[in-house]
Amino acid sequence: MPQERGFHVAVVGATGAVGQQMIQTLENRDFPISKLSLLSSARSAGKKAVYKGQEITVEEATPESFEGVDIALFSAGGSVSKALAPEAVKRGAIVVDNTSAFRMDENVPLVVPEVNASDLHNHNGIIANPNCSTIQMVVALEPLSQKFGLKKVIVSTYQAVSGAGAAAVAELNDQTRAILDGKEAEPKILPVGSGEKHYQIAFNAIPQIDKFEENGFTFEEMKMINETKKIMHLPELQVAATCVRLPVGTGHSESVYFEIDAEGISAEEVKSLVGDAPGVVLQDNPSEQLYPMPAYCVGKNDVFVGRIRKDLDNENGFHMWVVSDNLLKGAAWNSVQIAETLIDLGLVK
Amino acid sequence: MPQERGFHVAVVGATGAVGQQMIQTLENRDFPISKLSLLSSARSAGKKAVYKGQEITVEEATPESFEGVDIALFSAGGSVSKALAPEAVKRGAIVVDNTSAFRMDENVPLVVPEVNASDLHNHNGIIANPNCSTIQMVVALEPLSQKFGLKKVIVSTYQAVSGAGAAAVAELNDQTRAILDGKEAEPKILPVGSGEKHYQIAFNAIPQIDKFEENGFTFEEMKMINETKKIMHLPELQVAATCVRLPVGTGHSESVYFEIDAEGISAEEVKSLVGDAPGVVLQDNPSEQLYPMPAYCVGKNDVFVGRIRKDLDNENGFHMWVVSDNLLKGAAWNSVQIAETLIDLGLVK
Repeated sequence: MPQERGFHVAVVGATGAVGQQMIQTLENRDFPISKLSLLSSARSAGKKAVYKGQEITVEEATPESFEGVDIALFSAGGSVSKALAPEAVKRGAIVVDNTSAFRMDENVPLVVPEVNASDLHNHNGIIANPNCSTIQMVVALEPLSQKFGLKKVIVSTYQAVSGAGAAAVAELNDQTRAILDGKEAEPKILPVGSGEKHYQIAFNAIPQIDKFEENGFTFEEMKMINETKKIMHLPELQVAATCVRLPVGTGHSESVYFEIDAEGISAEEVKSLVGDAPGVVLQDNPSEQLYPMPAYCVGKNDVFVGRIRKDLDNENGFHMWVVSDNLLKGAAWNSVQIAETLIDLGLVK
Repeated sequence: MPQERGFHVAVVGATGAVGQQMIQTLENRDFPISKLSLLSSARSAGKKAVYKGQEITVEEATPESFEGVDIALFSAGGSVSKALAPEAVKRGAIVVDNTSAFRMDENVPLVVPEVNASDLHNHNGIIANPNCSTIQMVVALEPLSQKFGLKKVIVSTYQAVSGAGAAAVAELNDQTRAILDGKEAEPKILPVGSGEKHYQIAFNAIPQIDKFEENGFTFEEMKMINETKKIMHLPELQVAATCVRLPVGTGHSESVYFEIDAEGISAEEVKSLVGDAPGVVLQDNPSEQLYPMPAYCVGKNDVFVGRIRKDLDNENGFHMWVVSDNLLKGAAWNSVQIAETLIDLGLVK
């Protein structure tokens, strides 16, 4: 990345689970920053965060906060993005938004750099970062789509609680300890904070992430379905998803069945292709019990793929297991990676 | 059930996770027992178990243990079944075997009473109890197969550690507490006790249950594939499985995609049919966040089904979520239910 100049970067939602990872990722990547503004809701303003050893006070995000900002990374919820992202753009910033607010907007590129970086050229100030569970799946599917064509995807997810925020992680830990101690622990957050009912997540699996749509799918499932088609430029792709929350802190896993548009392809060919793809680490050797797992992917930017095998009935069908850190490639790293790509492409004014 | 006489029942593997549930289930069902023999390996012999308030000493299982036994429920591992089930049959007992030792034997019926009770008529002394993850799925699929015909099944499982025995449950609990306390806990059992590598199960998901086969599927996955075809009498059915172990004590969940051999069928019709099926409790109302979950199915004999919805691309395709207590319908209850059905059908000498 050319580092001729530094940029004024703002992180909106700096105190949240993803915001914290964004700050850390900017530091790890030695992102070219001339000034870093950490912003949040009024409730969290005044808290402090550390960037490269320096304490920075988090300020309340207002329209004026974005004066002079070059790049604003948003991850403070859809309503904050809807209210403030246009204000940031108005003031000359380019926004990378990690909420669902603009993802399906025709005028907003929805980008996973390994898949559709060229869509960035068509931005109008806002670039949407896809849903965590979508990102890791399309990184693994893209090389197959490019080489063979992709016809059908059926995914069942195994998602970590950090996708629901830091409070959900605390709920999992506190509830788990209470249950081990034989105590009661009233669920208050999961599966959906604003929902009417809350269920135990410790030692459980909850087949609901986000609210239900009229068609019986959840919003999370529809995000995976619609975002996958948009990112991969495959409006006709058949995609179905079942999204499930697990008692895992960080690291989403996915059991993915897919059908390619080619016959006679072996599992070894698929392994080789996926393993060579950008952003992918292949962990696939059954004889050595090598496959990806969420507990071992935390803190890494890669998408880990394993358990690749050919379907026993369908000549075009394959199965695979895809794991990634949902706070990094699923959120913070993909957002920072979009920002880096924007700079590389000369798209930041 | 006619209770004109009592039967001499033996439980082999009486001290194990499933054996304990078998004894409790025999008590709960008020099974017609004249004498109860509790048998185990030499290692566990001498331990005591309680049946209807009475302490019974567990004895080492030998060929002679089966003299006079009418019904023997085996759940002490495949090698014990292979060695002793024929000895029990030789002495006049009818064996219900909860291991994989005889399941795919052409001369051995593999039975889920709600699905293929009539196969019991063809027994030669041994009846096999299917794998836990298979049982709950075929109970939910059978009414659809009967009414519409079934073409294809793709299942991803979310399996509890008690399927790997009581020691695996202890490993999950101890390891979880250690991690919450910031301590180390060396994995020793999961995913496969006899395997070379062991992985953390607390706050993790392990995409391996049982050993790997040459085709890249695990033995657990192949059990689901082959047993489903045998039980449902559908040798041509397309079935694929991905089996995953979760940090859940008891209760297996399954994300099931299936295609029926009929078009124009609504999700409501499928719900109604599955909900009326024997052994099934429908828990399916998205607007009230009603769906099955493992933490809430423990101790119940039923198969719980929810999240039934029509695929958005395939007119014949549907998705559902199936949950059951893997120690009960998945093992102990299905075994006792087979024994009850044998008595009802007059098949116990």
